[in-house]
Amino acid sequence: MSSNGASYTLPARYYLDPELFRKDLETFFLNHWIVAGRTEEIPRVGDYFLRDVAGESIIVVRESKDSIRAFYNVCRHRGTQICDQREGNCGGRFVCPYHGWSYGLDGALLGAPHMDAATFRRDEFPLHKVAADVWDGHIFLNLSQGEPLPLDEQLGDLVKKFAPWQMGELHRRHRIVYDLKANWKLIVANYNECLHCPLVHPALNRLTDYLGADNEAPKSNYIGGYMGFRPGMETMTFDGQRRREYLPGLNSHERQQVQYYAIYPNFLLSLSPDYMLTHILWPRAVDRTEIICEFHFRDGEAEVNDAVEFWDCINREDWKIVEASQAGISSRSYRPGPYSPREVLLAGFDQEVLRRHGSGISRGANDREFVE
Amino acid sequence: MSSNGASYTLPARYYLDPELFRKDLETFFLNHWIVAGRTEEIPRVGDYFLRDVAGESIIVVRESKDSIRAFYNVCRHRGTQICDQREGNCGGRFVCPYHGWSYGLDGALLGAPHMDAATFRRDEFPLHKVAADVWDGHIFLNLSQGEPLPLDEQLGDLVKKFAPWQMGELHRRHRIVYDLKANWKLIVANYNECLHCPLVHPALNRLTDYLGADNEAPKSNYIGGYMGFRPGMETMTFDGQRRREYLPGLNSHERQQVQYYAIYPNFLLSLSPDYMLTHILWPRAVDRTEIICEFHFRDGEAEVNDAVEFWDCINREDWKIVEASQAGISSRSYRPGPYSPREVLLAGFDQEVLRRHGSGISRGANDREFVE
Amino acid sequence: MSSNGASYTLPARYYLDPELFRKDLETFFLNHWIVAGRTEEIPRVGDYFLRDVAGESIIVVRESKDSIRAFYNVCRHRGTQICDQREGNCGGRFVCPYHGWSYGLDGALLGAPHMDAATFRRDEFPLHKVAADVWDGHIFLNLSQGEPLPLDEQLGDLVKKFAPWQMGELHRRHRIVYDLKANWKLIVANYNECLHCPLVHPALNRLTDYLGADNEAPKSNYIGGYMGFRPGMETMTFDGQRRREYLPGLNSHERQQVQYYAIYPNFLLSLSPDYMLTHILWPRAVDRTEIICEFHFRDGEAEVNDAVEFWDCINREDWKIVEASQAGISSRSYRPGPYSPREVLLAGFDQEVLRRHGSGISRGANDREFVE
Repeated sequence: MSSNGASYTLPARYYLDPELFRKDLETFFLNHWIVAGRTEEIPRVGDYFLRDVAGESIIVVRESKDSIRAFYNVCRHRGTQICDQREGNCGGRFVCPYHGWSYGLDGALLGAPHMDAATFRRDEFPLHKVAADVWDGHIFLNLSQGEPLPLDEQLGDLVKKFAPWQMGELHRRHRIVYDLKANWKLIVANYNECLHCPLVHPALNRLTDYLGADNEAPKSNYIGGYMGFRPGMETMTFDGQRRREYLPGLNSHERQQVQYYAIYPNFLLSLSPDYMLTHILWPRAVDRTEIICEFHFRDGEAEVNDAVEFWDCINREDWKIVEASQAGISSRSYRPGPYSPREVLLAGFDQEVLRRHGSGISRGANDREFVE
Repeated sequence: MSSNGASYTLPARYYLDPELFRKDLETFFLNHWIVAGRTEEIPRVGDYFLRDVAGESIIVVRESKDSIRAFYNVCRHRGTQICDQREGNCGGRFVCPYHGWSYGLDGALLGAPHMDAATFRRDEFPLHKVAADVWDGHIFLNLSQGEPLPLDEQLGDLVKKFAPWQMGELHRRHRIVYDLKANWKLIVANYNECLHCPLVHPALNRLTDYLGADNEAPKSNYIGGYMGFRPGMETMTFDGQRRREYLPGLNSHERQQVQYYAIYPNFLLSLSPDYMLTHILWPRAVDRTEIICEFHFRDGEAEVNDAVEFWDCINREDWKIVEASQAGISSRSYRPGPYSPREVLLAGFDQEVLRRHGSGISRGANDREFVE
Repeated sequence: MSSNGASYTLPARYYLDPELFRKDLETFFLNHWIVAGRTEEIPRVGDYFLRDVAGESIIVVRESKDSIRAFYNVCRHRGTQICDQREGNCGGRFVCPYHGWSYGLDGALLGAPHMDAATFRRDEFPLHKVAADVWDGHIFLNLSQGEPLPLDEQLGDLVKKFAPWQMGELHRRHRIVYDLKANWKLIVANYNECLHCPLVHPALNRLTDYLGADNEAPKSNYIGGYMGFRPGMETMTFDGQRRREYLPGLNSHERQQVQYYAIYPNFLLSLSPDYMLTHILWPRAVDRTEIICEFHFRDGEAEVNDAVEFWDCINREDWKIVEASQAGISSRSYRPGPYSPREVLLAGFDQEVLRRHGSGISRGANDREFVE
């Protein structure tokens, strides 16, 4: 807050400084639950996929019908990456391709050829574990060292709130991968205000009123709200016409809304009344972010392209303006600017960033001077 | 100066160290007038072009018939770059594409949608300004914080000296962009001696005698001099034959010379009796420089390719040898070497570099040891 | 050694930290003899080739029938690289292409146009020298500052041991260049154990028994040993059938072995009974190594492709697994793992690395903790 009561954007270093980026990774990505994929990606026992989390290659594997496990993709012998395919089935055990050390689906070391039997103890060298849990079909990982908080506690009210959408019943029909030259926080910020919609997204603005968002007060682990459709519009596509059944659990109120939630740190969850759109953010550098965008539908729906084409267009409009922000913030002349009342969620996100960074800085006048 | 009275090239760090490069930018590029383009590039009110100055995107715009202004390309709201086209006409105001903040040609904030009317004051958020001025058609910028020295004072005697060439009347007919793997100072140095001409530029050496340069004593803001033509030669082209009228203001003495001036930091001004050649240097890294090379002529001249083809050849010869110097100076075995009397302008430039860096180092024996 | 008597792989920083990489270069590459090529590459007086040694461009030139010299490729005038072709004949003297300073094959400055005759002394500006010597056709360089230890002392017992192979009589028939994303030490380590052969090299494992290596105790300047052929196998090719004469100096014992020696820092010398395979390692970054692989034969041999095709396959198998090791060691979860008794040469190499780095660290338990 500045002296005139307004709140301001963050100082540039939060978007430019590699040290603060590492701090972001530590405080948002390595010590909290982060979304990583969907349970349907690994339906059979032994199915696995790899994820690159903050530079770490992580194996996510189905251990049993009801259990998903995750491990660092690093052999305990000489450190070799065990899996080199992005996804597959390990056939019951993971075998290091270098010298044949083998591990069970629970990470236990099963075999280590030619080690000295007199001194070597297999139980000292299991795969290093990563915590894994599931929320309605979404797989979450937690790379904390030590016992993490339960996933449900981090998600808080969201579990109950989104139960009617029955997200676990939906199936992915399309995936798009984007690579942005921008800090991940600018993507979160862009997602959480529609003040830019009239100029940036004319097609989207025909469906929902940019002044019509109904947002929750910012929480420590997420921000979000919903927008109501304009008259005659029923879903998020170019013409707003619904070509699918409503998701079956929704009441009449929920059928008239689009839900937009940024679940920290890397999950943008967008629920139309008839499909689910997800963006998963993978920060690759202080000024680069990979985004996995996926489209999920109920079984049996014939039409999905209307949603895909619409959002691919909206996405590209967003990425272009977000990259322009990253570029502008890189200027020596940039100083924090004032948020409007329509950008209150962003101020909430910024506060959470500062809180996790342990920053006691008071923003405002002092950070704002640029003497010409 | 060393103990034997000779002067030596600079220590390697001035060409290799990213910290000293930042110091170069600060002392040469961000606190002095630098050339940026030509007034004819923005003939109508609202015409603008962008320049990347030491990593800063700068908008240069015609405010009125007689006034050119410059601004940082950064919206005061959330830091977004306002213009994304290299040149164009802004239509009377600059509008940020993100949330629609709009600015006049004088940089004043004209509109800021949805800001809180009770607390927001538009006059607090103009575009950040950059000083702009013009010398005979050449637009100069000054990114100093605080009021800069007038451009005329920086240029000194050059304004009067070059008045006869009437540079403001010339028009650009060709542009070549080069990208060099070399520190910008090596390009300035290479420009200021012709001792290399017999080996590197046989075609040029046929036109002017490499021993025939008549140089001014080095000044604090420029170095340069002229070379006289060999008998039968009249201009700088492969055959030395003039296919254009003499520039109208030149006297008989000036018609027999080529002027070569390095105007610090980034302007190499080469005047033949019948055309103007300019090189603008844009340092991109300690070991990388972008060069904009342009050819300017009087109205109505039919033939320009003879000059373009000649200098494109000479340029490439220079860039190759300058890159070989950058590579060699990178060696641990490099030690400052002795200048000949024919390289006195380079010693003057080096002295200016040391002066602006505030270096009290005495070069010579101590810097020269490399024990094998 | 850890408390349980086992030895462990090195901490990750030895493979990841650019500072420790510079220390590697200093202690292994810039202060010892390193192999650089073959005398037959420069048969005539004035023939030269360039090598990039730890970022330094070095000229290696034949001064006379019996003498090879080496110099930094840096003119003593303004630091320009003198040679820009990877190999050639300098025609009796090296002439700098910038201002024509010229040097003899002994590095003496012969000419320096336009220097001030009153003060300039040519004998002060010879090319900076690099020590060069030859072992049985292999050219070695030593970039030490100061007088280096004689090459023979560094090679120790190897000179006598390998005399029967008469390596100086062999001729290069094929060269392959590889570029690996891995630290050079992982390539040395991979070369020195065959425990990985059953899984990684099925074709090689058919020729020699991975449990049948007979290794010398590790020396301070090399490690190595030999492997005996399986019954019916006579050389290292896909079918193990020999299509060439035995090298003439070998006794019956030596005819039944393949010699594998890693001569620190950059020479992997592999001698089959009928040909010589060499790998020269050029570290380019902490995680990148260029490898020059060459195949050398006696005069008059018709068939060479069987050896080339076999090793190109084995090489690629090795490089893939070595890159997987580099990637895995980059993980925050990596901790030194235990060596088996079959990896004793690697433990010896690691000890030499630690000794040269001056590391007093005792590895084992303390380095091994990764708290999940």
